[in-house]
Amino acid sequence: MRVTVVGLGLIGGSIALAARDRLAAEVTGWDADPAAIAAAVERGAIISGAGSLASAVVDADAVFAAAPVDALPDLVRGVLGHAPAECVISDVGSTKRRIVDAISDPRFVGGHPLAGAETSGVEHARTEMFEGATWYLTPSRHTANATLARVRDLVTTMGAKPVDTDAEGHDCLMAVVSHLPHVFANVLVSQLVSLDPSTVPGPSFRDATRVAGSNTTVWSGIYMDNRDALARAIDNAVERLQAVRETLAGGDHEALVRWSEQAAADRERLNHE
Amino acid sequence: MRVTVVGLGLIGGSIALAARDRLAAEVTGWDADPAAIAAAVERGAIISGAGSLASAVVDADAVFAAAPVDALPDLVRGVLGHAPAECVISDVGSTKRRIVDAISDPRFVGGHPLAGAETSGVEHARTEMFEGATWYLTPSRHTANATLARVRDLVTTMGAKPVDTDAEGHDCLMAVVSHLPHVFANVLVSQLVSLDPSTVPGPSFRDATRVAGSNTTVWSGIYMDNRDALARAIDNAVERLQAVRETLAGGDHEALVRWSEQAAADRERLNHE
Repeated sequence: MRVTVVGLGLIGGSIALAARDRLAAEVTGWDADPAAIAAAVERGAIISGAGSLASAVVDADAVFAAAPVDALPDLVRGVLGHAPAECVISDVGSTKRRIVDAISDPRFVGGHPLAGAETSGVEHARTEMFEGATWYLTPSRHTANATLARVRDLVTTMGAKPVDTDAEGHDCLMAVVSHLPHVFANVLVSQLVSLDPSTVPGPSFRDATRVAGSNTTVWSGIYMDNRDALARAIDNAVERLQAVRETLAGGDHEALVRWSEQAAADRERLNHE
Repeated sequence: MRVTVVGLGLIGGSIALAARDRLAAEVTGWDADPAAIAAAVERGAIISGAGSLASAVVDADAVFAAAPVDALPDLVRGVLGHAPAECVISDVGSTKRRIVDAISDPRFVGGHPLAGAETSGVEHARTEMFEGATWYLTPSRHTANATLARVRDLVTTMGAKPVDTDAEGHDCLMAVVSHLPHVFANVLVSQLVSLDPSTVPGPSFRDATRVAGSNTTVWSGIYMDNRDALARAIDNAVERLQAVRETLAGGDHEALVRWSEQAAADRERLNHE
């Protein structure tokens, strides 16, 4: 079993480690940045780095492309141009509509593991990164059933829970589940810096802003790609914030109790299902 | 050294444990709910529960009142009515203007440790709860210097870093540092439940919503008490959200990169100071 990881950052490096440890695969990798290849070899994530994208994928059984979303369409096209006919190819981009629209090859299925951290780089990669994590797979009408089944098996063995979905629905959901929390985190840090940058915040602020300013190359691409759904999610959030604000202005303690209790019920519901 | 804790929940229980372990104090406690007293004895946080508020504080060297903010003024008045002349009294409420305005006694100084968790109850109390935490102290013009100095020593020995501030400034800062993150968390869970309650969210959503619907009695009181400053903080957040929304609508990738980089710089600045 030969797995190739293209793009050796935090997520790519963790796929390499999980492929090595869970799939017992021979793992090779390529990155546009030679320093990232060297770091991945040093980390033990890949046996050796390939000299080119073509040589990295020419013998592969499976390829995972882990690059910023705006680089993915060209990168995946490059992989498809050199990978064998029986190879399966997936990506790990946080948005799916763009890549799924761009690629029409039976060997490709879009993917997105709900994993990551505020850190970046292969030096923070971990075999267990995907343990128990949802891993969305977004087949298009071009994706072969065998490709979907194979990738589903691979990510399951790496510890994740594959969930099939359509690219459009995925992006709308991610606008709320992932992109909006990042926007909130960015807003909170900017607001506190404006007010008093010398504050040493408590645990709720630290947790709420853990992802503020995460990998700016990756995240500006995600915001850009999913701008329509994210703008709608922000509009919806603003409506909810303005409703709370009116309740506060009205000084209605009972309404604030009901609002808090609804939030507790909502959180419980998300944790249980 | 005799310390009395009035209100034996998560924070009160942790003060009892820290007083026992760090101050080597003889710790007693009282709570309006007999079950909370029994749980605190069971947890080892207090030696025995008092039969009344009066008997709990009559011999105390220091009293900490740890109750929801709307219960604090009456509770602290009750403590002051029975505590000795040399006793110092403080509270741990998340808002400070109301209690500081209500109490004019040289033995009292307002307090607020930046600590806590999404859990509640003395069974989750921990000796180390205040280790390294900022503990705001808000003296009024009535507070004796000796009271402030004594309480500062006590919280320092319990592991915290005391910071003197005025009640008004404290409440404005907390609207952003603590209350707004709770509002954002509540908004996020309600938004996701509306969209798809069956979603299993990833790490950024889980961290961002850890405090959603926290102890609803405590938090509805906090929102109510600090409604003016919190409404202003929400207005400011909405302005920032609408600015991002416009950048998204304009499809300006470079502006999104700059915004992400500013957030990274803001976060770094908060972590370093």
